[in-house]
Amino acid sequence: MTRKSKKTEKEVKKAGKLKVIMLGGLAEIGKNLAVLEYENEMIVVDCGIGFPDDDMPGIDLVIPDFTYLRENADKLLGVFITHGHEDHLGAVPYLLKHIDAPVFGTKLTCGIIRNKLLETDLGYEPEIVPVEAGDTVKVGQFSVEFIRVNHSIADACCLAIRTPAGTVMHSGDFKVDTTPIDGEIIDLNRISQIGNEGVLLFMCESTNVEHPGYTPSEKTVGGAFDAIFRQNAGKRMIISTFSSNVHRVQQIIDISIRYRRKVAITGRSMLNIVAAAVDLGYMSFPEGTLIDISEIKKYNPGQLTIIATGAQGEPMSALYRMVFGEHDKVTLGKDDLVILSAHTIPGNEKTVDRIINELYRTGIAVWRDPYADVHVSGHACREEIKLMHALVRPKYFMPIHGEYKHLCLHGKLAEEMGMPSSRIFISEIGRVLELSEEEAAFTGSVPAGVTLIDGSGVGDVGSAVLRDRKHLSSDGLIVITAAVSAHGELIGGPEITTRGFVYVKESEDFLEELRGVAVSALYDALRTARDAAQIKSRMKEDVSRAVYARTKRRPMVLPIILYV
Amino acid sequence: MTRKSKKTEKEVKKAGKLKVIMLGGLAEIGKNLAVLEYENEMIVVDCGIGFPDDDMPGIDLVIPDFTYLRENADKLLGVFITHGHEDHLGAVPYLLKHIDAPVFGTKLTCGIIRNKLLETDLGYEPEIVPVEAGDTVKVGQFSVEFIRVNHSIADACCLAIRTPAGTVMHSGDFKVDTTPIDGEIIDLNRISQIGNEGVLLFMCESTNVEHPGYTPSEKTVGGAFDAIFRQNAGKRMIISTFSSNVHRVQQIIDISIRYRRKVAITGRSMLNIVAAAVDLGYMSFPEGTLIDISEIKKYNPGQLTIIATGAQGEPMSALYRMVFGEHDKVTLGKDDLVILSAHTIPGNEKTVDRIINELYRTGIAVWRDPYADVHVSGHACREEIKLMHALVRPKYFMPIHGEYKHLCLHGKLAEEMGMPSSRIFISEIGRVLELSEEEAAFTGSVPAGVTLIDGSGVGDVGSAVLRDRKHLSSDGLIVITAAVSAHGELIGGPEITTRGFVYVKESEDFLEELRGVAVSALYDALRTARDAAQIKSRMKEDVSRAVYARTKRRPMVLPIILYV
Repeated sequence: MTRKSKKTEKEVKKAGKLKVIMLGGLAEIGKNLAVLEYENEMIVVDCGIGFPDDDMPGIDLVIPDFTYLRENADKLLGVFITHGHEDHLGAVPYLLKHIDAPVFGTKLTCGIIRNKLLETDLGYEPEIVPVEAGDTVKVGQFSVEFIRVNHSIADACCLAIRTPAGTVMHSGDFKVDTTPIDGEIIDLNRISQIGNEGVLLFMCESTNVEHPGYTPSEKTVGGAFDAIFRQNAGKRMIISTFSSNVHRVQQIIDISIRYRRKVAITGRSMLNIVAAAVDLGYMSFPEGTLIDISEIKKYNPGQLTIIATGAQGEPMSALYRMVFGEHDKVTLGKDDLVILSAHTIPGNEKTVDRIINELYRTGIAVWRDPYADVHVSGHACREEIKLMHALVRPKYFMPIHGEYKHLCLHGKLAEEMGMPSSRIFISEIGRVLELSEEEAAFTGSVPAGVTLIDGSGVGDVGSAVLRDRKHLSSDGLIVITAAVSAHGELIGGPEITTRGFVYVKESEDFLEELRGVAVSALYDALRTARDAAQIKSRMKEDVSRAVYARTKRRPMVLPIILYV
Repeated sequence: MTRKSKKTEKEVKKAGKLKVIMLGGLAEIGKNLAVLEYENEMIVVDCGIGFPDDDMPGIDLVIPDFTYLRENADKLLGVFITHGHEDHLGAVPYLLKHIDAPVFGTKLTCGIIRNKLLETDLGYEPEIVPVEAGDTVKVGQFSVEFIRVNHSIADACCLAIRTPAGTVMHSGDFKVDTTPIDGEIIDLNRISQIGNEGVLLFMCESTNVEHPGYTPSEKTVGGAFDAIFRQNAGKRMIISTFSSNVHRVQQIIDISIRYRRKVAITGRSMLNIVAAAVDLGYMSFPEGTLIDISEIKKYNPGQLTIIATGAQGEPMSALYRMVFGEHDKVTLGKDDLVILSAHTIPGNEKTVDRIINELYRTGIAVWRDPYADVHVSGHACREEIKLMHALVRPKYFMPIHGEYKHLCLHGKLAEEMGMPSSRIFISEIGRVLELSEEEAAFTGSVPAGVTLIDGSGVGDVGSAVLRDRKHLSSDGLIVITAAVSAHGELIGGPEITTRGFVYVKESEDFLEELRGVAVSALYDALRTARDAAQIKSRMKEDVSRAVYARTKRRPMVLPIILYV
């Protein structure tokens, strides 16, 4: 598979150096995006979304700032996706809105991307190119080899990227599972060969670098499930996990078959993924295993397994609705046993605890990580990370995919393995690392940051809007409206309206007092102020001061003058 | 010490049963409050605050709903505080605003309460009565014995409460520390004696019931500190911990003296507590050990320890300001070593991570729990909890102080120790447990819940206000203002004002479109609507629909009509 460079004329060379720029995936978990640039050609590795922090009210998604890519759209020859998780591919539709570049990934990855693109109107037919582990894709002077790794989604790869300046090894997300469900062990032989050929730069994920030892095999989860099924033959099993964890779902189905249970699936994303995985051949089971959720009435509890979305406690997920009695098909009771087969993502502790507490309150048995072995991580722990370093033996190293603490601890790990600290580059978003066999150094930076996505349509949400939202949410709002004649006389209002501030009924006297303050401020201002802006700022100041004196709160005060 | 009942006449007896009602401390961590009621007398054990959830924007504090206590103010004979933590005494000033009842606690506890009351104008002189471990206080038919326990604050007690119906043992917060810093081991002998005399009800805290084994002694932290100090002689030590952990602070000072370091303290609450603890005799060190934070310039890094507030990553705390370069006296650098000597309270993970990541980013060494033994819990783990059950051997058991999962697991623990499940009562906020030697049962409930505190003055924040705040914060606000004449003609506006919705500059066309929608809606409504409410609801509907169609967002739409 060979793709031509879009450039017809070469621009001036820059001493044959490779540039590596992270536009995401540093100092955070999520929204991974790496740019590799050589002469006038560039490729992108991964293009993910992140989820908003508590201090981003109303924001649905966070994506990398694409300014640099848009400014260099004609150089971009391809987008290479390591695997099908949202933090690695979720922003592909947003990127393709701006830039028509081919996207490469394995079959499952491409299936998930195509599915996402169904909801997006790009105005052109995007080029989504499925490859297989072992394939090499050539675009311009880049040659990208997909190499099998293990992870918590099927068909995940790391990438060996050959450039005229040398080979870059990008780990993607990985673990070393010597007994994977699909039998496809991480291709340590090929990684070792690439290491022998010589690697200029190793970019390696850092998620679990704080955790010693090895991540257990996915198969251990099957063992734990088997024991729970065996010891609770009369119970209906309700199991919640990440819908993209195809192998986990396959294990749950396999064990259900072993114990002669039918399997019902609930939750849109779980239904979608299972359908896609069966279609693409990543999952299989005998006809008649799956039943529709509306058919569960026909079976005894001991004959049923229900697989549900909602392992992070998401409100409106299938599990949440079951637990809080809002699911139209499943009512939980004493015959149920709930298994949360997932790790709680940092930030979701409280929503998950809400589910767990409610299950305890209603007396429904719950099995969960870490009190039962019902989950394993998809990321390499320290010993696996060290194994990769030992095989790749790169000249330079850049830890990626982690918060700062992870990146720094990963840098220290490389040092402990004998790499001089001068060859370890802990980057920041937008920073440019230029490197060749002879030398490597940070040489500058490009525009980078995050773009906040809220709803659709009217532009993105900027910091001014967020600041207003935070202000509104912490102390509420007071609107003061007045109508003023062309001669500068007050002829209507001022009317005081509040939201999120106080109960109007309990505080009528106080609001009347504020009206008085606003009236005086208005009369004063109408006598002396030069324009509407001055009148407004006078009303705002006086009312804010009166409110603070009485309540010690600082609501947003919004004066509106209507000239009639 | 004997206190008379306020009641002069006894009302009709109810078969001599004791009522136990939790107004806080169940299904949550924080705001502990237990009510014990016998005939027409009642006492309160603990009266704490909680901190707001993510879904309570702008709320400063959460306190128990005092409705039931206010309705029965004349019955309340005393408030007994087990120890000086905010979740056990923080709401005392709020309670005393409504009810003038005597408050009992050990010396440090009373000192902290008095300190809090300095900021509150009650309009009367409250009765704050210091007692010592071993003392018994009689109020009406209740007799309350304070018994020493170990905890992460000095001078903590559990309570043996004798009533005509039997003895209630209330654990407060405790751990079993056989090598405590002040030499005061939990009084297991006395607890055992009370158990021998017979205990009707054991109310026991459940915080660490998920954790097997024993909580290590506070002294182990001293050992870890000593090793860090010894191995990092040239570094300046910056140590952050809970300011109320007087023994932890004493250990840090002792070890600093051992290594010939001066100690500077920064952060208001830490300065207050150390001053109070020295005053009351809970802390001691030679003259000249403490220096003012402004004097640190006179010393080398290896001669200094700085103790700072901010172990939970609180913005504006001393540690936060240091780490982000906003502290006016301390600038961090390569000569510093930061120790976070605290557990991260659930919900604070992200703020603490922000501190840790910034320290890694700037290359400053950081030691933290659980990667170094620089913190131990103040709460009993399973084996200690079991020890207490074994000593108290109660007739009935009520787990308290925990989320539902903790309460249920604690109930299971009691069952495992041989208590019949019929004698275990997992309560809910406001539920009434009535009990005597013969029987115990839930018999009803009283008004209970939470009161949200935001600023001061104008009433409390209710659910309607919170709902508005959440709405405003998630999608922002559109205000539509119009002036209408007495004849029902539109004579000014409509004007569209937005906050937290979109950038006005980028969206002028869209706002103009919305103005058009509002104008049509207004004209339509002015022709047909019967009153202002109908006109407003028409404008709101039409504008909301237009906004959603274009943006998929649902901002709050606030129509204001001025009649002129």
